[in-house]
Amino acid sequence: MKILILNGPNLNLLGVREKSVYGNRSFEDYYEELKAAFPALELSYFQSNTEGTLIDKLHEAGFGAYKGIIFNAGAYTHTSLAISDAIKAIDTPVVEVHISNVFARDAIRHKSMMAPFCTGSISGFGLESYRLALQYFERLKPKQIGFSV
Amino acid sequence: MKILILNGPNLNLLGVREKSVYGNRSFEDYYEELKAAFPALELSYFQSNTEGTLIDKLHEAGFGAYKGIIFNAGAYTHTSLAISDAIKAIDTPVVEVHISNVFARDAIRHKSMMAPFCTGSISGFGLESYRLALQYFERLKPKQIGFSV
Amino acid sequence: MKILILNGPNLNLLGVREKSVYGNRSFEDYYEELKAAFPALELSYFQSNTEGTLIDKLHEAGFGAYKGIIFNAGAYTHTSLAISDAIKAIDTPVVEVHISNVFARDAIRHKSMMAPFCTGSISGFGLESYRLALQYFERLKPKQIGFSV
Amino acid sequence: MKILILNGPNLNLLGVREKSVYGNRSFEDYYEELKAAFPALELSYFQSNTEGTLIDKLHEAGFGAYKGIIFNAGAYTHTSLAISDAIKAIDTPVVEVHISNVFARDAIRHKSMMAPFCTGSISGFGLESYRLALQYFERLKPKQIGFSV
Amino acid sequence: MKILILNGPNLNLLGVREKSVYGNRSFEDYYEELKAAFPALELSYFQSNTEGTLIDKLHEAGFGAYKGIIFNAGAYTHTSLAISDAIKAIDTPVVEVHISNVFARDAIRHKSMMAPFCTGSISGFGLESYRLALQYFERLKPKQIGFSV
Amino acid sequence: MKILILNGPNLNLLGVREKSVYGNRSFEDYYEELKAAFPALELSYFQSNTEGTLIDKLHEAGFGAYKGIIFNAGAYTHTSLAISDAIKAIDTPVVEVHISNVFARDAIRHKSMMAPFCTGSISGFGLESYRLALQYFERLKPKQIGFSV
Amino acid sequence: MKILILNGPNLNLLGVREKSVYGNRSFEDYYEELKAAFPALELSYFQSNTEGTLIDKLHEAGFGAYKGIIFNAGAYTHTSLAISDAIKAIDTPVVEVHISNVFARDAIRHKSMMAPFCTGSISGFGLESYRLALQYFERLKPKQIGFSV
Amino acid sequence: MKILILNGPNLNLLGVREKSVYGNRSFEDYYEELKAAFPALELSYFQSNTEGTLIDKLHEAGFGAYKGIIFNAGAYTHTSLAISDAIKAIDTPVVEVHISNVFARDAIRHKSMMAPFCTGSISGFGLESYRLALQYFERLKPKQIGFSV
Amino acid sequence: MKILILNGPNLNLLGVREKSVYGNRSFEDYYEELKAAFPALELSYFQSNTEGTLIDKLHEAGFGAYKGIIFNAGAYTHTSLAISDAIKAIDTPVVEVHISNVFARDAIRHKSMMAPFCTGSISGFGLESYRLALQYFERLKPKQIGFSV
Amino acid sequence: MKILILNGPNLNLLGVREKSVYGNRSFEDYYEELKAAFPALELSYFQSNTEGTLIDKLHEAGFGAYKGIIFNAGAYTHTSLAISDAIKAIDTPVVEVHISNVFARDAIRHKSMMAPFCTGSISGFGLESYRLALQYFERLKPKQIGFSV
Amino acid sequence: MKILILNGPNLNLLGVREKSVYGNRSFEDYYEELKAAFPALELSYFQSNTEGTLIDKLHEAGFGAYKGIIFNAGAYTHTSLAISDAIKAIDTPVVEVHISNVFARDAIRHKSMMAPFCTGSISGFGLESYRLALQYFERLKPKQIGFSV
Amino acid sequence: MKILILNGPNLNLLGVREKSVYGNRSFEDYYEELKAAFPALELSYFQSNTEGTLIDKLHEAGFGAYKGIIFNAGAYTHTSLAISDAIKAIDTPVVEVHISNVFARDAIRHKSMMAPFCTGSISGFGLESYRLALQYFERLKPKQIGFSV
Repeated sequence: MKILILNGPNLNLLGVREKSVYGNRSFEDYYEELKAAFPALELSYFQSNTEGTLIDKLHEAGFGAYKGIIFNAGAYTHTSLAISDAIKAIDTPVVEVHISNVFARDAIRHKSMMAPFCTGSISGFGLESYRLALQYFERLKPKQIGFSV
Repeated sequence: MKILILNGPNLNLLGVREKSVYGNRSFEDYYEELKAAFPALELSYFQSNTEGTLIDKLHEAGFGAYKGIIFNAGAYTHTSLAISDAIKAIDTPVVEVHISNVFARDAIRHKSMMAPFCTGSISGFGLESYRLALQYFERLKPKQIGFSV
Repeated sequence: MKILILNGPNLNLLGVREKSVYGNRSFEDYYEELKAAFPALELSYFQSNTEGTLIDKLHEAGFGAYKGIIFNAGAYTHTSLAISDAIKAIDTPVVEVHISNVFARDAIRHKSMMAPFCTGSISGFGLESYRLALQYFERLKPKQIGFSV
Repeated sequence: MKILILNGPNLNLLGVREKSVYGNRSFEDYYEELKAAFPALELSYFQSNTEGTLIDKLHEAGFGAYKGIIFNAGAYTHTSLAISDAIKAIDTPVVEVHISNVFARDAIRHKSMMAPFCTGSISGFGLESYRLALQYFERLKPKQIGFSV
Repeated sequence: MKILILNGPNLNLLGVREKSVYGNRSFEDYYEELKAAFPALELSYFQSNTEGTLIDKLHEAGFGAYKGIIFNAGAYTHTSLAISDAIKAIDTPVVEVHISNVFARDAIRHKSMMAPFCTGSISGFGLESYRLALQYFERLKPKQIGFSV
Repeated sequence: MKILILNGPNLNLLGVREKSVYGNRSFEDYYEELKAAFPALELSYFQSNTEGTLIDKLHEAGFGAYKGIIFNAGAYTHTSLAISDAIKAIDTPVVEVHISNVFARDAIRHKSMMAPFCTGSISGFGLESYRLALQYFERLKPKQIGFSV
Repeated sequence: MKILILNGPNLNLLGVREKSVYGNRSFEDYYEELKAAFPALELSYFQSNTEGTLIDKLHEAGFGAYKGIIFNAGAYTHTSLAISDAIKAIDTPVVEVHISNVFARDAIRHKSMMAPFCTGSISGFGLESYRLALQYFERLKPKQIGFSV
Repeated sequence: MKILILNGPNLNLLGVREKSVYGNRSFEDYYEELKAAFPALELSYFQSNTEGTLIDKLHEAGFGAYKGIIFNAGAYTHTSLAISDAIKAIDTPVVEVHISNVFARDAIRHKSMMAPFCTGSISGFGLESYRLALQYFERLKPKQIGFSV
Repeated sequence: MKILILNGPNLNLLGVREKSVYGNRSFEDYYEELKAAFPALELSYFQSNTEGTLIDKLHEAGFGAYKGIIFNAGAYTHTSLAISDAIKAIDTPVVEVHISNVFARDAIRHKSMMAPFCTGSISGFGLESYRLALQYFERLKPKQIGFSV
Repeated sequence: MKILILNGPNLNLLGVREKSVYGNRSFEDYYEELKAAFPALELSYFQSNTEGTLIDKLHEAGFGAYKGIIFNAGAYTHTSLAISDAIKAIDTPVVEVHISNVFARDAIRHKSMMAPFCTGSISGFGLESYRLALQYFERLKPKQIGFSV
Repeated sequence: MKILILNGPNLNLLGVREKSVYGNRSFEDYYEELKAAFPALELSYFQSNTEGTLIDKLHEAGFGAYKGIIFNAGAYTHTSLAISDAIKAIDTPVVEVHISNVFARDAIRHKSMMAPFCTGSISGFGLESYRLALQYFERLKPKQIGFSV
Repeated sequence: MKILILNGPNLNLLGVREKSVYGNRSFEDYYEELKAAFPALELSYFQSNTEGTLIDKLHEAGFGAYKGIIFNAGAYTHTSLAISDAIKAIDTPVVEVHISNVFARDAIRHKSMMAPFCTGSISGFGLESYRLALQYFERLKPKQIGFSV
């Protein structure tokens, strides 16, 4: 079962910026831990600061082998109608994740433009948000793909 | 490790109303499954349609033996400043859960008044949203309580 | 044919407060007149100032013997998403009534959160608003339940 | 007791457009049924698609023999300040009716510009909305004209 | 001269939560001090987290022996139209009090739904806000009840 | 203990304008009563219709001998960011007072630009609002200056 | 010098409706007085309740013999973009008049859609508003037509 | 194939007003050119300044021989909910046209109330906008009526 | 009959700034013409750039010998609640005048805070706006002071 | 005559996504049909999901050989001020096209940021929207470039 | 080359208030440093807390010997339309300066009413903002006055 | 001392587009002049039309050798939350510059999303805005980095 973890703008700075808040661990390092924790899932990882490149990646992963996408779109979550359209267009289910609790931050981050087309949203659990999303996909039976209650 | 699952208005109707959408399984039934799945956690469950009664319960669980609260406040999520104040006041960390993806519904449900004071939010995974919240608490080391990145 | 008349906050004060405006007749007194006027209907009456208690009552009447609910939710009409959800969830048709013309009052009363899920709305006819709602149900053939043009 | 039933824009299409929704009955046909049902009331009926013509008719009926006006202003309900002014200016009480539940439709229809100057509003009961308005006038004692609680 | 002190949601936590901010004194303890300071006034005290229960209490105290109500409605100040209606309906004058300066907090707390129907408002003086309200009632001559300049 | 009472625009008209509402007593007359009632406080009084002159006075009283300022800024309460900045800049605590209940008046008066930087607010008690503010300062122990719960 | 006085919806009711407010004098009667007072001006008068008919009249008077139009558009002042476009399109200068002070009434009347394309506006002087507009045209030298400072 | 060209308020002034902008060609003149250019289409033309008359015409053309309507509703495009309802009600497809680019003008013209119920919109090409609309209908195969991608 | 002409901020620049627009005539020069044109009226003139000074002047003229005030408050028209309060407080009727048509300018000038308390408003006639205001007062019979239809 | 057809985000998915709605024809396939239909025009085609790359292309085509650009900016239509600036900056006229009727979709799509700087807009005709735009350019005489009425 | 430095409300407190933030240096002291640093410029300095006095000063400096004005209007930047009008009216170019970065503060400070009529704006560099403004004027060739790209 | 000058979308067109407004000088040409004028600073220059590429560059320059960044983000200033996040995340201070006075342009340009995280802002001085920013960095002592009053 192939799962893509997709990170948006500024998430390449994890472990570099504001270490007192975000810790000194890079996402690449954490990604290794996740791969070890979910041996049954075939993970891949991609990051870009460019809106269009993220859309290109969604298209690539959205019509084929991938069974799920875990997407932290960073600031584009709140401003990109084009990413929202891409998620709506593709077949693969997308789970939205955020490291911080976006609802506890400034008002512009209270609205997610992509959420309406995602299976679900997980925010505020730090890097653990990604693990919870993987746990969701791990339990999902193939036939349950697209199940949304 | 004691965990309270708290459900707000109309959630007592699960398994009764709109079965084609929500299935014919009551939350009480699902709760038995959760207790079996998390033997290391000491779960308890409470539901009320009354805002004040939910606040009373938060106060009761918020200063003592409970290590976590999983709270689906239903419609009060979006209208109750008093519940938001209660969550802010108590010590026990609260995880917000929703069965449906509230961001894919009408605009009044896009704003959570309680989210700013919750550890994190999980929505859209059906009843699995509760399981993911329990998985979060299960991994949490006692000293990590309050950790929020 | 069982019909529930449900009154919300402050409507227990009819006949007590602002008599020059609302008259000195209590709803209980008027209720006796209605029962006499509609002998073919089996009426019952309930009032509460508590949002959650009104939801409890809607659940109780919403899945069984009652064929209709006449609901004056008072101020909760304009603020309660939880009551709106309850009306949406139940099977029994609900007719919204108001004693005063809420559209002739302050702006917050121009929006009804429950109206989208009610069969219809009647406002501004004084206590006669209840009678008109009963006349609607009286004419309704059993098979017409749910008819909405 | 003379009562005018006044219909605004597009209501001449009843029975012609969207028959699956509105049925295949014209208002003229239903009007015959109403006349038969209320022999004690002297009904008359007028329809126009033009805002100014409706105002002309309100002026004509508003200062004389008519004891009541039942007015479905269609889309002008939500946009016409001039009709609102006309209703405010005349002496004859006006009851606002709508076939559909306007509050369950798009937001622009949630605001009635004429409601503040009407005796009351009835919406959502299909063509039965007109019958309920007639039942209101039928019970009204001459001295009660203008009574509004 | 009977005066009711009425406290709304979360105010039962005074002395328990956020002690560094609110101090470690419960309202019950402060209430004893107030009773001693105003021997000429017959004080009583009630707290509830439930909106409807507070309305019940306002009705009980609003038509009889009480000469004044000092009401800290907590978060309901900003969201409850039903409490606002109750204050408008009763005869007894109500003074609105707040421990913190609500205007120095988040925007949702800048609007008081009950203020338009209260004699006056006192906010920001800590627990002293209650004492100032009592001083107002203490000076009030019986005939001055309702005086509002 | 020196206290400044500062009045803003149009308050020089007390006792002159709209006597049926505001009475025929000038503030100067009431001020004499206040001086007699609080012999332990050293009161002074200043009024101006000019925003800048009120700021000058705040600066003069804000860094020295005065222990408190009681400020009724009239209409500038709702429009003057410059006065708000002045109150924020000075050391002396300011209590905001209003004769009428500003929240019961037109919407523009519901927002106080200065409240966020005042110790507290008292409104709606007529001229008694000033007395209550003085009672607050009277009880304040020197070391309590700045205390705000 | 030909001047057209153009009146919009409901102004045909002057002298009929709300006599205590508007007096019992019809506009036709006042118009005779104006003709006598301005013998040097060749006046004509037209009234309609229909937006399109008023536009027809503006077109007729806007490209020829008339030197000025005095227009009281009633409620269309605030809602009609089409009338606004007509005034912008024609050559003849238009003076906007209102009997009441529209700015002292409800908010929807604070915005005039036609004012941006009128020479000037006169409101609040009762029927005298028309006289002032005529005095403006009377002084206007032919070459001054279109002068606007 | 019968096509109706329908023009709204002020469009009768083409060739008369603001010639430097709109040219000195009347629509009637241009209409002759269009008839010559589309010999296979049976064109007819109607203009009115009255909202209700335009609705009457839409009803007349909307249920019968006409295969398409090209509608430039002028200012009513942005204000008329009644015209919007009429377009929604009729069977004949309507193409919205504008001479100027309405999105480059004032904000009130950025919203078209009728667009949601039109097949498509063409604006900004001068009188050529009408020709493009005819080219659309010309290519349309009978069975494609209602095709909208 | 004493009349005060009161000018607000920047009006002292008439004849100095933007001469191509406002002409090269100072208000003082025009004032001499007005005095000559209205010999029966006793005119006086005052200008200030300071809001508070204008309020001082309104107070001075508002309770005594003056029978009318003609007030061009310039930019304060749109921002000063304090001036609005002053006009409301005084007895003397105030006529609002503007040289330019404020409704044809930027949006902030479309709202007059003082208009609700003025007898009437005249704008857009250049300096002639003042003359029209004087003509209004000239015709006013002493007993008609305060007449407003 | 060189014409560039420029497509924005997600338009590369035509023929792949939601085939029941958009058909199973790719834009590349349709493009071949257009080239055949307009032999007198020299067409070229470019698509990108990246905002900046689209701007690069506009710059390249905007100052030289191209006589027109047909631009479907997809979601960037509604969010990209940078693309709007680019269209404003270049010399080549741009025609905005949309496959669907954007005004019949969600509110965020009702506003086009680029429309104010485009020659015209065509939306809602499916892929035919592109053909209509080409028909516009085909008729355009070289000297008419920039013509906009 | 004469340059006026003009400071608005509360800027006389520099060096007195909030020393930890603004430092203990008065503007007068810094002004001496500026005079020494720009010997070729003839500087003068004026401060007032009164809006009207600042307008008086702008008028005085705006039509004569001064070649530039450096204006920190403090809070009036965001509220004073009258100052904005004064800057628009005068001939001398005005550069807006702010000590703090106003865009990093509360929302009311994000809008400058004077900026549209200023040559440019400099904010956030502490007292250095004034120096940068002087450097701008220092380089400005006489003929370049008014140059704004 | 290394300083990066970073230019956003459409700024590569300087000297090409709208020469009458922006002059015929390219930024590259001006950049040579700046290098000559500030020999003590080590300047580098980068321009891109792509949001993500600008973020990449900010990351590259934000954690190392550069002592300052001068950033004209063009239209992204007003729409890009992702760039705002990048500026917040990096260590190097950023000065925002604009060629035109953005506050004198359309409303969407009045809000800068990046300003809250910039040291300061300079706008409206044409290309001189860049020089002023360099003068700021030139004076900055190494230890003063981050100083912001």
